[in-house]
Amino acid sequence: MSPRQPVLDVAALTAFLAEVFPQVRGEAVIEAVGPCTARLRLAVADRHLRPGGTVSGPTMFMLADLAFYVAVLAMIGREPLTVTTNLSINFLRKPPLADLIGEARILKLGRSLAVGDVTLTSVEDPRPVAHASCTYAIPPGPRTG
Amino acid sequence: MSPRQPVLDVAALTAFLAEVFPQVRGEAVIEAVGPCTARLRLAVADRHLRPGGTVSGPTMFMLADLAFYVAVLAMIGREPLTVTTNLSINFLRKPPLADLIGEARILKLGRSLAVGDVTLTSVEDPRPVAHASCTYAIPPGPRTG
Amino acid sequence: MSPRQPVLDVAALTAFLAEVFPQVRGEAVIEAVGPCTARLRLAVADRHLRPGGTVSGPTMFMLADLAFYVAVLAMIGREPLTVTTNLSINFLRKPPLADLIGEARILKLGRSLAVGDVTLTSVEDPRPVAHASCTYAIPPGPRTG
Amino acid sequence: MSPRQPVLDVAALTAFLAEVFPQVRGEAVIEAVGPCTARLRLAVADRHLRPGGTVSGPTMFMLADLAFYVAVLAMIGREPLTVTTNLSINFLRKPPLADLIGEARILKLGRSLAVGDVTLTSVEDPRPVAHASCTYAIPPGPRTG
Repeated sequence: MSPRQPVLDVAALTAFLAEVFPQVRGEAVIEAVGPCTARLRLAVADRHLRPGGTVSGPTMFMLADLAFYVAVLAMIGREPLTVTTNLSINFLRKPPLADLIGEARILKLGRSLAVGDVTLTSVEDPRPVAHASCTYAIPPGPRTG
Repeated sequence: MSPRQPVLDVAALTAFLAEVFPQVRGEAVIEAVGPCTARLRLAVADRHLRPGGTVSGPTMFMLADLAFYVAVLAMIGREPLTVTTNLSINFLRKPPLADLIGEARILKLGRSLAVGDVTLTSVEDPRPVAHASCTYAIPPGPRTG
Repeated sequence: MSPRQPVLDVAALTAFLAEVFPQVRGEAVIEAVGPCTARLRLAVADRHLRPGGTVSGPTMFMLADLAFYVAVLAMIGREPLTVTTNLSINFLRKPPLADLIGEARILKLGRSLAVGDVTLTSVEDPRPVAHASCTYAIPPGPRTG
Repeated sequence: MSPRQPVLDVAALTAFLAEVFPQVRGEAVIEAVGPCTARLRLAVADRHLRPGGTVSGPTMFMLADLAFYVAVLAMIGREPLTVTTNLSINFLRKPPLADLIGEARILKLGRSLAVGDVTLTSVEDPRPVAHASCTYAIPPGPRTG
């Protein structure tokens, strides 16, 4: 999308999340960020399961939501109050019991709204297990890069 | 919608969830079910929070998803492999730090798909904090009422 | 939702639509508006059909979108540049070849976003044929009541 | 996604649409189909506009819906009763008054459901103007390739 580079790197984003969002610690690891993109990895554990021996919907929602949050923060800087206004997720396949990857892509980064999607795959199968469309509201700045 | 009555009551649904879905134990209480409806209550705890001192998106997703799952199971009977295919949630207001209510309504109960919505409110404010549209895929029967 | 009354009535809204949106003339009639609600009726014609002898998806989208637009304009006044940012529609049943009713309900009317849903039914069957969730962006005021 | 090739080409799909769906004639041209993909072009005309001198939401919905329909038919063959069950569209930017391109991508092609997305761009600007997630229900076969 945009040739603009992220203003926060993986280390800065990881530290920021640990500070403002301790509930997600240990839930997902930020693997990479780029211009309007982010990739996160979730180590699937027993608490993420649902009947049928598969990863639960709320777990996949959380990974999609967090991946898009990280993609936005990478571009706009430290703004914890950036909040989801809409997330629509399609569940495509029963994921195997293996780590999940969430790849977020910002399609529009406006002053007050960021819109895009997240594709979730398993590390054991390249076919997507879920696909989410996300809209985040961005509060007025300024913020620290 | 339908004048049909639920085939499972609150006690049966509560026992069934505890058996097949132990991860949600203590997350939400089934308060009522009716024809194509269900009401659940989530006791908000520290693990449900996000930056800004409010309930996290994944927590509200989970309550919406679970409320619709319960509404469907109440109508079709014990079928743990009923799975979400789409859930689209709009977050409307920052919920206060108080219990959340999820009211699910089935708009179409077909043989293979159930579609409807869930309205989430706080016990401290009648205005909705979130609204979700849900589609669940129902596996072929028979199942035990 | 809100006890606030509409600032535009059916006649004013009908005149306003005819002026700013001539493409919808003859497509739908505004039947009623109320506090955060609107009801529109679409006279189904040949151009609205799709294979299978039923009303097309874009026609139902248009009715849902227009019903929500009218509900918002009724509350905020003449603001043609109020625009849809998201519309998610579930198609529930094949509608009979008869007029369609769209009932819009605003769940949140904020300064910059309005969020709600629209239920579409046929005049020949009370069961919903489609259900849409809508988000509209509202430009900064002032505007004429 | 899939290495499977389409079973219908552009000429066969164009002829099929003209036969079963005369309402869309002149609305959009099929430019290309590939494995789980399709690209359509809409020649924007006066009837597609809305207040503000831009392309209307229902027009963009129609292009997204049609592009996904074509992508699915290309893979499964002539099945006019393949129907949309959900379409969620985010409007990203006001499109210029120029032709629109819809690029559809199937993320899951199951026996009874096809799920994917469509990105809409203007021929005058590479940034997306809208992005839609689509689910189609596929009736049981057989059908003619």
